[in-house]
Amino acid sequence: MASASEKSDNFTPNNLGIKYREEEVERFMVECMMTQGVSRDRATTLAQVLVAADVRGHYSHGLHRLGHYINDVKNNLCDAGTTPTIVKESVSTALVDGNNGLGPVVGKFAMDLAIRKAQTTGIGWVCAKGSNHYGIAGWYTMRAAKQGLVGVSFTNTHPVVVPTRGKQGALGTNPISVAAPAEGDDSFVLDMSTSVVAYGKVEVAHTKNEAIPEGWAVDKHGCMTTSSAECLDGGFIMPLGGPELHSGYKGFGLSMMVEIFCGIMSGSSYGPNLNSLLRKDQPADLSHCFVAVNPAFFAPGFEERLGDLMSHCRNMEPIDTNKPVLVAGDPERARTDQVKKDGGITYHINQVKEAWQLAEYLGVSPMQWI
Amino acid sequence: MASASEKSDNFTPNNLGIKYREEEVERFMVECMMTQGVSRDRATTLAQVLVAADVRGHYSHGLHRLGHYINDVKNNLCDAGTTPTIVKESVSTALVDGNNGLGPVVGKFAMDLAIRKAQTTGIGWVCAKGSNHYGIAGWYTMRAAKQGLVGVSFTNTHPVVVPTRGKQGALGTNPISVAAPAEGDDSFVLDMSTSVVAYGKVEVAHTKNEAIPEGWAVDKHGCMTTSSAECLDGGFIMPLGGPELHSGYKGFGLSMMVEIFCGIMSGSSYGPNLNSLLRKDQPADLSHCFVAVNPAFFAPGFEERLGDLMSHCRNMEPIDTNKPVLVAGDPERARTDQVKKDGGITYHINQVKEAWQLAEYLGVSPMQWI
Repeated sequence: MASASEKSDNFTPNNLGIKYREEEVERFMVECMMTQGVSRDRATTLAQVLVAADVRGHYSHGLHRLGHYINDVKNNLCDAGTTPTIVKESVSTALVDGNNGLGPVVGKFAMDLAIRKAQTTGIGWVCAKGSNHYGIAGWYTMRAAKQGLVGVSFTNTHPVVVPTRGKQGALGTNPISVAAPAEGDDSFVLDMSTSVVAYGKVEVAHTKNEAIPEGWAVDKHGCMTTSSAECLDGGFIMPLGGPELHSGYKGFGLSMMVEIFCGIMSGSSYGPNLNSLLRKDQPADLSHCFVAVNPAFFAPGFEERLGDLMSHCRNMEPIDTNKPVLVAGDPERARTDQVKKDGGITYHINQVKEAWQLAEYLGVSPMQWI
Repeated sequence: MASASEKSDNFTPNNLGIKYREEEVERFMVECMMTQGVSRDRATTLAQVLVAADVRGHYSHGLHRLGHYINDVKNNLCDAGTTPTIVKESVSTALVDGNNGLGPVVGKFAMDLAIRKAQTTGIGWVCAKGSNHYGIAGWYTMRAAKQGLVGVSFTNTHPVVVPTRGKQGALGTNPISVAAPAEGDDSFVLDMSTSVVAYGKVEVAHTKNEAIPEGWAVDKHGCMTTSSAECLDGGFIMPLGGPELHSGYKGFGLSMMVEIFCGIMSGSSYGPNLNSLLRKDQPADLSHCFVAVNPAFFAPGFEERLGDLMSHCRNMEPIDTNKPVLVAGDPERARTDQVKKDGGITYHINQVKEAWQLAEYLGVSPMQWI
């Protein structure tokens, strides 16, 4: 759920990092989940989504989050043994009930359904209710793009975003992801929250005891603040655009659009009815939306045109020659290439320690570094 | 293509205003277009879209724009005599060729096609190429919402938006509109450009000799500027979010998403290939995308849930008691109610003078005020 340049909440490998092969991280995650009675198949789906986040540099949605998934299953907040079911279906649409299963299991099921429909009728539009945190939205849309389709995904999240003129949160950081295939191995991968920044960015600033820019957040009284501590102490994140003068209501409108396609359309919880991040006594009841559009049903030459447009942007003269113009997905592609070159994912020592503790707690073999 | 609070480019009725019944404005527009050989039927479609813009307070897209449409037809840049054709079709998708017809004629044809498909299969996704300026995006989506569907529309526009880190424009203000029906007569109507502000806002500031806020625009060298004159002198508008620190790349990503669903998918011109606003020697070749989603194919109770969510937001405690929290579409609803109450649309005297000149030039009866 992070986006193109949301890099400050991500760990940059340095001397404090330890490297692990992707397969080894996946093995570890799968075994951890299996200690909670999760089937190998479902645990693998979850692990693949989390590993993809780490490979793309979105560490907040990868190994870092494994403990949350384990706790949710352990505390019976998530029913990892269920299979999603189709409640209602047409040739091009479906309503899926996740039956409170693991988010990535629900998401993969629903996206694959949308993909199959798009292969037949040109479009698949699937809403899924009764789900849990599904990881990075981009995993689902890239799955469609790999099959030559344009993938779109939305998810609602807990209400931490304050509407323009408001004092309290009303909607989530509700991300939008769109992935589209371009010539060669190229692709456009937009994966962004509809808030100015993801919540994690404020947390990172707080950890570093840093101020945050004006226009990112408000305090518990609804006043704009540059103090990360004030934001985290009952404050909220601002919608994309920031204050009203800079059109923050557009970001809030986009967030509501996402909620319409998720909670409102699927009949799940929505907006202020979603559990707060802190409340952990009932299922999350999150919902998602998955769309696949088949370019073959429109004009020939889609991938060539998209490749041309992206090349044009990348080759534009930048203001600072050290900072080239990027297209959505480029920073993550660079990170992925680095992981391939390195032969593995490099985690910060603190993350590694957490994984060791988890291994010991669950009786699973710790990850072996390379 | 303007949004919730984009009010500063809109005229606020005062003593300098003159009032006209909606029907009279429509009559005038239709007769003006008919002098150029446009059929009554097509002229009426165009007039209805323009009148709707004025009623909603988006004067930049109403009567103010009539002259542009007339010139385009007069100069054979737009072929108002053509009918859109379906190039390719499935039960849920279609590719439409506008055949260089009037934008609103192409748009209405394509949106109605998406609506019919959504009534049958739950979703209609229609891309239209070879079109012209189609007015406010919200007109098409509200058309879907009036039939109980969620309407979505995108259009590409001329490249006036600078990518994050870039110095030149690459994509348009590429608006997004989403309209959804709620309980009673209520509705959610998002109609926003993916740039910080619409181009017109900078023009208005320039007319008033006012500075613009930092983060709205760059000058011709790609440097942020607070001078409206510098922006208009070869400069560009920034994407929603503004500078990189405030996630302007998200707005640019959304703008590219719109272009993918318009020019790239339909096989029309795109991004930097679109005519500049100033070039008037060839057809615009704009393209649009229209989506209708039928809530009846998903969970029952859509309109009640949406009404509840919107009520929640509107009833939130605001920072300033004189400025209530609004939902997308609320400012336009208030303006529409005022027009109904007044019995007509109030235009600024300068706009009225322009219409008089047009009437004389074309030999059409001027609008009769009330």
